[in-house]
Amino acid sequence: PDLSSVNTFPASRLHELGVELFVACGAPDEEAETVAAHLVEASLMGIDSHGVVRYIWYVKQCLEGGIRPGAPVEVVRDNGQLALVDCGMNFGQVGARRMVEWVRDRALEGGIAFAVSRHCHHVGRLGAYPQALAEAGLFGFAVANSQRHGHFVVPWGGREGRLATNPLAWSAPTLTRDRPILLDMSTSMTPEGKVRTALHAGQTLPAGRVLDADGHPTTDPAAFYGDDDGPPAGAILPFGGDLGYRGFGLGLLVEILGASIAGVELGDGHDIPYINGFSLLAINPATITGEANRFSALTEELKSYITGVPPAPDHDEVVLPGEREFRLLDRRRREGIPLPAETCRLIDAAAEKVNVNHRLTGA
Amino acid sequence: PDLSSVNTFPASRLHELGVELFVACGAPDEEAETVAAHLVEASLMGIDSHGVVRYIWYVKQCLEGGIRPGAPVEVVRDNGQLALVDCGMNFGQVGARRMVEWVRDRALEGGIAFAVSRHCHHVGRLGAYPQALAEAGLFGFAVANSQRHGHFVVPWGGREGRLATNPLAWSAPTLTRDRPILLDMSTSMTPEGKVRTALHAGQTLPAGRVLDADGHPTTDPAAFYGDDDGPPAGAILPFGGDLGYRGFGLGLLVEILGASIAGVELGDGHDIPYINGFSLLAINPATITGEANRFSALTEELKSYITGVPPAPDHDEVVLPGEREFRLLDRRRREGIPLPAETCRLIDAAAEKVNVNHRLTGA
Repeated sequence: PDLSSVNTFPASRLHELGVELFVACGAPDEEAETVAAHLVEASLMGIDSHGVVRYIWYVKQCLEGGIRPGAPVEVVRDNGQLALVDCGMNFGQVGARRMVEWVRDRALEGGIAFAVSRHCHHVGRLGAYPQALAEAGLFGFAVANSQRHGHFVVPWGGREGRLATNPLAWSAPTLTRDRPILLDMSTSMTPEGKVRTALHAGQTLPAGRVLDADGHPTTDPAAFYGDDDGPPAGAILPFGGDLGYRGFGLGLLVEILGASIAGVELGDGHDIPYINGFSLLAINPATITGEANRFSALTEELKSYITGVPPAPDHDEVVLPGEREFRLLDRRRREGIPLPAETCRLIDAAAEKVNVNHRLTGA
Repeated sequence: PDLSSVNTFPASRLHELGVELFVACGAPDEEAETVAAHLVEASLMGIDSHGVVRYIWYVKQCLEGGIRPGAPVEVVRDNGQLALVDCGMNFGQVGARRMVEWVRDRALEGGIAFAVSRHCHHVGRLGAYPQALAEAGLFGFAVANSQRHGHFVVPWGGREGRLATNPLAWSAPTLTRDRPILLDMSTSMTPEGKVRTALHAGQTLPAGRVLDADGHPTTDPAAFYGDDDGPPAGAILPFGGDLGYRGFGLGLLVEILGASIAGVELGDGHDIPYINGFSLLAINPATITGEANRFSALTEELKSYITGVPPAPDHDEVVLPGEREFRLLDRRRREGIPLPAETCRLIDAAAEKVNVNHRLTGA
């Protein structure tokens, strides 16, 4: 098979397939809808690593018991403004959406709310959650740590990984409600997936991404992985280049807001399930100023001030965080979502395992 | 005079001098104490740019009316968890301390609180405020934008400055109450002050800090400033090197939480006073978990996990954010605070202007 070939599918078809897959895994219709819609939207926005390619892993996790479709999501503690939510190892998106609704409603009522998770599986595209808050006129901020898996990112000055890519995301509304400002960033220099892609493609990495087993900087993906099939021998650097102690400090912020503040201990041992420590903050600016639309008007003013800057020689324009993803979303809604043939083949294999007949490949 | 010579003073003497200066400017004793203690602590921690050197500018601002000593600090709106605080152009530290007390008390009671400022002058070392919250067992997060001054930092892909250095800071307690984890970082590659220092010293800058007037990267401070005495012809890059769109996004976060969310418009024109848009969030982890000391126990566990990493070849050890500053604080408490002779001379000149007899120079 030609591994480099790409097929393009309408979002609606991939959405239907996702719903079929997750229902076949035991998810109630509404929850299957939530997860499929989330992953298709990530693909539409060009965040392909968190898009429909995840159908493959999610089905596997359902079959192995890592994800428990239909498990109850429960607010364990709640003082009105703060909540501890047990996501029951349901799909991360199901728990995280419930948390979005909780903080949204409480912030609209009381001005501010913060929810932290326990037993939350992979939440997917982190930006989706503050984005949903911004669409309700709120300021939203979210973090996600990884309790144990993927601790490849070194503390500043160290040579062994102790943190995951630990993303953070925030969003604020503008006057165009479905075009909020949206930053969704990792606190590391690269995800491990990109290092592996470079390894497979026989490419070198940009400078300043990873260390080898001895803690020396390297651009060779093979030096990062080492010789055997175990965990990587090297490590990933925190975001920030020669100022990487800042990225390390941001990674710790994610660790603390995602886990420690929820009373969650560090993961211990390699047999524990995949868990995201997900936390979400919502603030209602209207409660602060007493004026319903002032915040959006001011972010719109800020947007003009920022994007009015003449571009630097090697850039075409200045855009706000999220803008490129929203443009791609519009385009892929029209033109479809491209998927590598190998991804289609693996999604089909997952479908076969749960007796779903829908196939992306073949005649 | 030998401009390179340095004199060392006990912290107590510099503190007394600061109190005398600010009282002479019209500050009530307690407020003069607050400001002097803040600046001396910054000097003790090695953050000299935000230390007692600021006596000079603060006295000038008092004389010119930029700072209004003794002005009332008022909570303008307050729903119990959110507050809008008018700092009345008193010293920024006076307003910010009042905000620390407000969010601390409300978070201890209700679990979470957020306060935003209006008419807040220079708050100084931003980390001081979340640090004070951590000392009360809380998680603290703060930002400070600059309403108009120092907009030298480019949006990603632009060639003209639109943001200030826009710092953010967070802190969390450990089991050692006066040694919290404390990150205090700018969202730009450099403060303008360091570029000027390099210019005066005839040095080049590290790569990736600034752009020249045409938007090209340069390491020449003179190319940043251009020929005349006006504002810099070039601009400062956002934090993050080739991933600087993330630093830009963090700078925007500071802008939005520091100003837009408080209903504050962009500064307009060059005659407006110096204003920091300061905001402060406090979360009480004990409200979430129901256990008083669980959070500190977990951050301590995290600390061990992180600092137990073997150092990379070019590093001696792995330390948490804030640790180096706390160590220097201990040392300077014993050994004193070094001040360049020129700084002493300028502080003496400020003292003379407000009829304070205390002198740091000369016999």
